[in-house]
Amino acid sequence: MDYTPLFSNAVRRSKASAIRELLKVIAQPEIISFAGGLPAADLFPVAEIADIMQNVIRKHPQASLQYGATEGQAELKKELITLLKETENITATADQILVVSASQQALDMTARAFVNEGDSIITASPTYLGALQAFTAAGADIRGAESDENGVLPHDVEAKLAALKKEGKLCKFIYLVPDFQNPTGTTIPEERRIKLLELAKKYNTFILEDSPYRQVRFEGSAPRTFYALDEGRGNVITMFTFSKVLVPGFRLGFIVGPKDVIRKYVILKQAVDLCSSPTLQLATAEYLRGGHLKKHVKDLIAAYREKRDLMLKTLAEVMPAGVTWTKPAGGLFLWVTLPKHMDAMDLLNKALARKVAYVAGVDFYPACDVKNDLRLNFSYSTKAQIVEGLKRLAQTIKENM
Amino acid sequence: MDYTPLFSNAVRRSKASAIRELLKVIAQPEIISFAGGLPAADLFPVAEIADIMQNVIRKHPQASLQYGATEGQAELKKELITLLKETENITATADQILVVSASQQALDMTARAFVNEGDSIITASPTYLGALQAFTAAGADIRGAESDENGVLPHDVEAKLAALKKEGKLCKFIYLVPDFQNPTGTTIPEERRIKLLELAKKYNTFILEDSPYRQVRFEGSAPRTFYALDEGRGNVITMFTFSKVLVPGFRLGFIVGPKDVIRKYVILKQAVDLCSSPTLQLATAEYLRGGHLKKHVKDLIAAYREKRDLMLKTLAEVMPAGVTWTKPAGGLFLWVTLPKHMDAMDLLNKALARKVAYVAGVDFYPACDVKNDLRLNFSYSTKAQIVEGLKRLAQTIKENM
Repeated sequence: MDYTPLFSNAVRRSKASAIRELLKVIAQPEIISFAGGLPAADLFPVAEIADIMQNVIRKHPQASLQYGATEGQAELKKELITLLKETENITATADQILVVSASQQALDMTARAFVNEGDSIITASPTYLGALQAFTAAGADIRGAESDENGVLPHDVEAKLAALKKEGKLCKFIYLVPDFQNPTGTTIPEERRIKLLELAKKYNTFILEDSPYRQVRFEGSAPRTFYALDEGRGNVITMFTFSKVLVPGFRLGFIVGPKDVIRKYVILKQAVDLCSSPTLQLATAEYLRGGHLKKHVKDLIAAYREKRDLMLKTLAEVMPAGVTWTKPAGGLFLWVTLPKHMDAMDLLNKALARKVAYVAGVDFYPACDVKNDLRLNFSYSTKAQIVEGLKRLAQTIKENM
Repeated sequence: MDYTPLFSNAVRRSKASAIRELLKVIAQPEIISFAGGLPAADLFPVAEIADIMQNVIRKHPQASLQYGATEGQAELKKELITLLKETENITATADQILVVSASQQALDMTARAFVNEGDSIITASPTYLGALQAFTAAGADIRGAESDENGVLPHDVEAKLAALKKEGKLCKFIYLVPDFQNPTGTTIPEERRIKLLELAKKYNTFILEDSPYRQVRFEGSAPRTFYALDEGRGNVITMFTFSKVLVPGFRLGFIVGPKDVIRKYVILKQAVDLCSSPTLQLATAEYLRGGHLKKHVKDLIAAYREKRDLMLKTLAEVMPAGVTWTKPAGGLFLWVTLPKHMDAMDLLNKALARKVAYVAGVDFYPACDVKNDLRLNFSYSTKAQIVEGLKRLAQTIKENM
């Protein structure tokens, strides 16, 4: 039986994620990995989660184990409304929120809700590769706008919007990770957000705001979210996940947007998976209701800040001249730029031979046209591993300059 | 901000599920509902699940709460391999299995893996409406083949296959629920399965076998699955879910197929949601490893058999002449056919006024061209509700004949 003629274009277009595949290669314990986007497992609130989980199942067996509403469990949405108000000064009603199976599903469903094969979207370049994977599966024509140390450049976003208009095409949405971006760690300042929002309005499109690490800020004050800056005009759909601030294993996140749009997502989700697990939704609601999240995020910030500081200090000590890196004020990642002639993908095998791993930057560029960057994660490794791993990486770079 | 021009064709095509929407209307406790496909909540193994869940989280915090492999947790796959061998005499390796977020995701991912907008597939008519919803979202041209009391008619499937060939089109797959079909409750006998399998081979396509209730058999012996009958030739992809035999709240199921095809699903799932919850996967693995499932299914069979018997007995007592129904040997549903001139959708509001609910049959037909059937679920209601609800329904029918 030859399946080749039967596969869809989505399958033909899709390629395996460089990160997911790499994660399998580097599962050996002797490798120091800066590759994944994994939170530190030793900080997981294990006892609280175990207690809450069994209490929720015993107290609410029917609600937690039966099918749930596609829109999400009312108990969780209630907590999300409070959370949005307290942390972001965002006022949302239940019908403006859809609970999803973490941010990858939010990305995939957004692509499916807006992108027909060949439709155009704009992203920063570089940007999160899981998003590129979801958009590619939907057949999007992805236009990458240039970035600097303050994120995507509004004038290049406008150039891309104007070019599309000239071609007679719509920009279905502008995808941005405004805070501590994956992969670069950069944050878009508020005045730049306001400019980008004006562009979205001018060109009748919306900003898809992806904020997985926004709460994990080490210093300084946070610019307002695009969603808050939009003040309910409807030009922003924003998405959050519990993967980085609670645990990835629950696969829970949520989308906030205009209620008519959320209604479309709900109908799509009926076809996609009926509902996200009520068991995990009720446990998360209970965790939020108990006020545990605020304290846990504080612990995360303290731990990741130390690791970021150590990584920056060690990079300064061990890296040869000609290598530069970003200084993120939060999140999980920083971005290293090698001299122009170097190829971080070629270098990866040599690094792996020295038992240190990272993700080569090329796959984060929509056009795969820049080869001399690499992404380092600082949340997952221990402090000893950070020092030792960076020494190995610096040695590898020096030998191949 | 007007989103109308931005939505994809998938959104334009999608309509809300009649069942999901109805479930909201009938949430009032005074309504007796035969509408949903909900398992009986009073049979959920609550204490076992609560214990297992907290043990798994405490003993394996990293594996259960961190990101997992897209393919599924190795611990769960090991148990699935044993389960397939013991219950179905199916030999499968880990790379032939993908863990998914229950059968709705298996349906949606199959549609996305094989169907481009306008591609043709064949289903039984009537068939599961959640499947129709997933296939419609992908833009499938759905050809419904006629059925009798033994399921889909091979000669009509062949007529549809031949017609497609004549039109120069591929049949991307043939979707069937062979055991206690949703909505009709009918089962395809083994000799008919063999004929259908020969047709799949002859026309270079595959059978997508959906078996959510297969283990819930009240009497007689089970025909072999399509997958087992195919003997590894690759013309069958089969899917199971834990929603009906354990709990729907875990949102877990699995797909079994040729390993090259499963690899394509894995890459697609990276874009779709990265992985299904490792927390729930490890808990399910532990439940299976402890041997709890076999006993639980035995309890389900005993309870649902009594309810089916009561429903059949009551129908015979209360229904007027001219109304007929199927006699399923397992599963959760039976199918009532009203006199030709009646419209079960029109009747539904009158039934709701009498505080009894069902799902009108029309949405289960790919062409929505038959209006005089309705689906009754017998797993969810209590025995007292079954008797009272059927009396109300019979009264409604009599008054509108």
